[in-house]
Amino acid sequence: MNKIAVFPGSFDPFTLGHKNLMQRALPIFDRIIIMVGYNSSKNSFFDLDTRMSWIKKIFKDNPKVEITKYDGITVNFCKESGARYILRGIRNATDLGYEKTIAQTNKMLNSEIETIFLLTPPEYTNVSSLIVRDILIHGGDASCFMPKEISSQELKAGRNLF
Amino acid sequence: MNKIAVFPGSFDPFTLGHKNLMQRALPIFDRIIIMVGYNSSKNSFFDLDTRMSWIKKIFKDNPKVEITKYDGITVNFCKESGARYILRGIRNATDLGYEKTIAQTNKMLNSEIETIFLLTPPEYTNVSSLIVRDILIHGGDASCFMPKEISSQELKAGRNLF
Amino acid sequence: MNKIAVFPGSFDPFTLGHKNLMQRALPIFDRIIIMVGYNSSKNSFFDLDTRMSWIKKIFKDNPKVEITKYDGITVNFCKESGARYILRGIRNATDLGYEKTIAQTNKMLNSEIETIFLLTPPEYTNVSSLIVRDILIHGGDASCFMPKEISSQELKAGRNLF
Amino acid sequence: MNKIAVFPGSFDPFTLGHKNLMQRALPIFDRIIIMVGYNSSKNSFFDLDTRMSWIKKIFKDNPKVEITKYDGITVNFCKESGARYILRGIRNATDLGYEKTIAQTNKMLNSEIETIFLLTPPEYTNVSSLIVRDILIHGGDASCFMPKEISSQELKAGRNLF
Amino acid sequence: MNKIAVFPGSFDPFTLGHKNLMQRALPIFDRIIIMVGYNSSKNSFFDLDTRMSWIKKIFKDNPKVEITKYDGITVNFCKESGARYILRGIRNATDLGYEKTIAQTNKMLNSEIETIFLLTPPEYTNVSSLIVRDILIHGGDASCFMPKEISSQELKAGRNLF
Amino acid sequence: MNKIAVFPGSFDPFTLGHKNLMQRALPIFDRIIIMVGYNSSKNSFFDLDTRMSWIKKIFKDNPKVEITKYDGITVNFCKESGARYILRGIRNATDLGYEKTIAQTNKMLNSEIETIFLLTPPEYTNVSSLIVRDILIHGGDASCFMPKEISSQELKAGRNLF
Repeated sequence: MNKIAVFPGSFDPFTLGHKNLMQRALPIFDRIIIMVGYNSSKNSFFDLDTRMSWIKKIFKDNPKVEITKYDGITVNFCKESGARYILRGIRNATDLGYEKTIAQTNKMLNSEIETIFLLTPPEYTNVSSLIVRDILIHGGDASCFMPKEISSQELKAGRNLF
Repeated sequence: MNKIAVFPGSFDPFTLGHKNLMQRALPIFDRIIIMVGYNSSKNSFFDLDTRMSWIKKIFKDNPKVEITKYDGITVNFCKESGARYILRGIRNATDLGYEKTIAQTNKMLNSEIETIFLLTPPEYTNVSSLIVRDILIHGGDASCFMPKEISSQELKAGRNLF
Repeated sequence: MNKIAVFPGSFDPFTLGHKNLMQRALPIFDRIIIMVGYNSSKNSFFDLDTRMSWIKKIFKDNPKVEITKYDGITVNFCKESGARYILRGIRNATDLGYEKTIAQTNKMLNSEIETIFLLTPPEYTNVSSLIVRDILIHGGDASCFMPKEISSQELKAGRNLF
Repeated sequence: MNKIAVFPGSFDPFTLGHKNLMQRALPIFDRIIIMVGYNSSKNSFFDLDTRMSWIKKIFKDNPKVEITKYDGITVNFCKESGARYILRGIRNATDLGYEKTIAQTNKMLNSEIETIFLLTPPEYTNVSSLIVRDILIHGGDASCFMPKEISSQELKAGRNLF
Repeated sequence: MNKIAVFPGSFDPFTLGHKNLMQRALPIFDRIIIMVGYNSSKNSFFDLDTRMSWIKKIFKDNPKVEITKYDGITVNFCKESGARYILRGIRNATDLGYEKTIAQTNKMLNSEIETIFLLTPPEYTNVSSLIVRDILIHGGDASCFMPKEISSQELKAGRNLF
Repeated sequence: MNKIAVFPGSFDPFTLGHKNLMQRALPIFDRIIIMVGYNSSKNSFFDLDTRMSWIKKIFKDNPKVEITKYDGITVNFCKESGARYILRGIRNATDLGYEKTIAQTNKMLNSEIETIFLLTPPEYTNVSSLIVRDILIHGGDASCFMPKEISSQELKAGRNLF
């Protein structure tokens, strides 16, 4: 039986921290589906197409990775895709509190889905999409938080699209 | 002397977690006033009348429970109602940080009011108004987080009122 | 029906923080039993008689307060004493983690007992029996952490008894 | 390639929480080795043989589970056993702090070993070996925290062996 | 060599907690620059001029204190001003999580800048700009959280300016 | 006026984390006194002379650093040495809870002493004397957590002295 995991997030944008998590999780599973969540009534910093194209670029050579968008309940998506696992990273106690709530809710909605956690390594604990956006808003260069596949130019231009 | 407690919140909506807290706190006090806070300049997910009517339905057979709305400082409301206690639930460390700030502020504004805490039992720690709203936004069914007095239909329709 | 609470602890020694908690909790209950826990196979810093005599001195004029010793499961003691409530203070997130575990265990052992929490006011968050003992070990004066009924001399002499 | 995980602990004793973790983790791996850590210079509550025999009893019908004892550095044991993963549960923020330290240390000692975390479900967050021991010390019945394979009698007798 | 620190914040408004931090930090440094951060695309509760004029009033007699506004990356401002230190206060675990992220990010952007922390004393842990704004929104008097240099009238009028 | 700080600890042993803290704190102060605390009634892993000789070796070329032993209340030592500051590192929320208690107690015992905190950088958050001792107990090599001045051999031999 194939071991499939879903890695859900808004990835606004997908950072070095997300990439590190994927690289460490890939050996555990047969396939990982990166589920780019969006909320049609809520604005994102980078638009959905930009976010997805960047992730595709990063994993273009890895056949075990699939990228898809979804605007719904994560456990429903898991069921539709045959995934039994959800993959998540934990940086700190604040993350833990949030993840506990989500994992417990998912269990109530579908008890067959298991959430697997990896801890963020210390050198990435401050890497977050929020920090990237904050640096860009203040005119700084956030490329040190991004996978090398996304250039500093692309990062700045990405936002200008909307 | 009557022991009166105020249970303040926005209750947007009142969940199974709030109901559990009330049931465990009722034996301690002679009367509990559920104070539905609102902020005229801020939108709620469910409108004030809907929120209040649901709470009234849940406690309609309990003469010790009173429901009222208020848009002001909680300790002022306590003084006006003759309540000496504020009732609050704590789920986790994030709640604790928040509640410490509020309780300490209330003590500075009126040192006679005491805040009493109950811990949320583990099976309800993920139940929150925020999760209910989030599931509804994504088109899911959140009735498993709600008191049985509020049907799945009412929950969905409630929001449509505005 | 009488509202009886048990305030369990090792009270090694009973500090200003414990006294503050009692004073704030007394209006809520008809009677509070201070249950001085001991473990016959474990050494305490102050012996059991000293600990109990100090607490008796502090509350000698308050007929609502009872002091007793117990070496067993707290919920069993509650049942024997007709107490339905356990009283506890919370200072910080570490306390919360500990108290959640204890309260959940008590619920599993006897679901009728409810634990009521008060938050320690900020000026007492560093007051603990551990700090008192630590200062005494290093030859300092810890009387500023103790109820005024216990003199600096008694505090130092108390330990010398064993 | 076989996916082998090591589940290290002192398991003094192995509780319902540990069993739940194993059951949820088994589908992810091809084999899980329960490594019962011991420290020859430190006393345990239950002796090593008792602890191991209980775990063997619990998993006697599961060929994917192996039980072994070890008194050394966990990552060294992983290397010797061909295991690339360490399995751990997280109950709360205190656990997280501890696990972060251990995982980061393991990474420094051997960067190829990955630690996989599952969150303890809410109904088991208060289940711990420490609580079991504490209840036994106070003469209570802790069998509600133990896998059904270990009877209340065995639990009490286990300790009497030494 | 002069020891210069930057104390960055939005100070919306500057509270008793900020003033306490400054008073305790001033003996450590030769000069402290209060950097009032603003974000041209984001509304503040009090406008930038009001916030700055209040801080100037509070420190008008202290030649070691300088007040300036800035809308950019803090470490860049430090470099421009010759400051090698950033000054920050920590109230609780939530603050710590936030500050760790910021400090680690600053280190990545400029490794020469060191952040120095003081803990907020317990009597000020609930004092925050957020609480001041919240009390004002609900029509209360928040002057007990403000330096005496800012009157209750100024506080209320300050907001009316926009 | 000289700015003197005391860096108190048991330093059993002094790790790479302690060294990093010192290096970052030295520019802030004119002198830092490393106060090696000991408790005559408590065993340490490395004996007092070994611990002190290692620290002396590490800072032998830095005239701003002084090393001394003390078995008493830290603020009393500060007063005797003319130090107005205590220097401490914070790694995580558990540290913070502990440090808040200590700092608040010190303030009560002597309100003139200020405690200055630096956050431990992420790559050192798992470095602690406890981890070093734990690895040594299990027969591992802990020299990667130690300043280069202390060789792997010295570390192992150090313990054998007692």
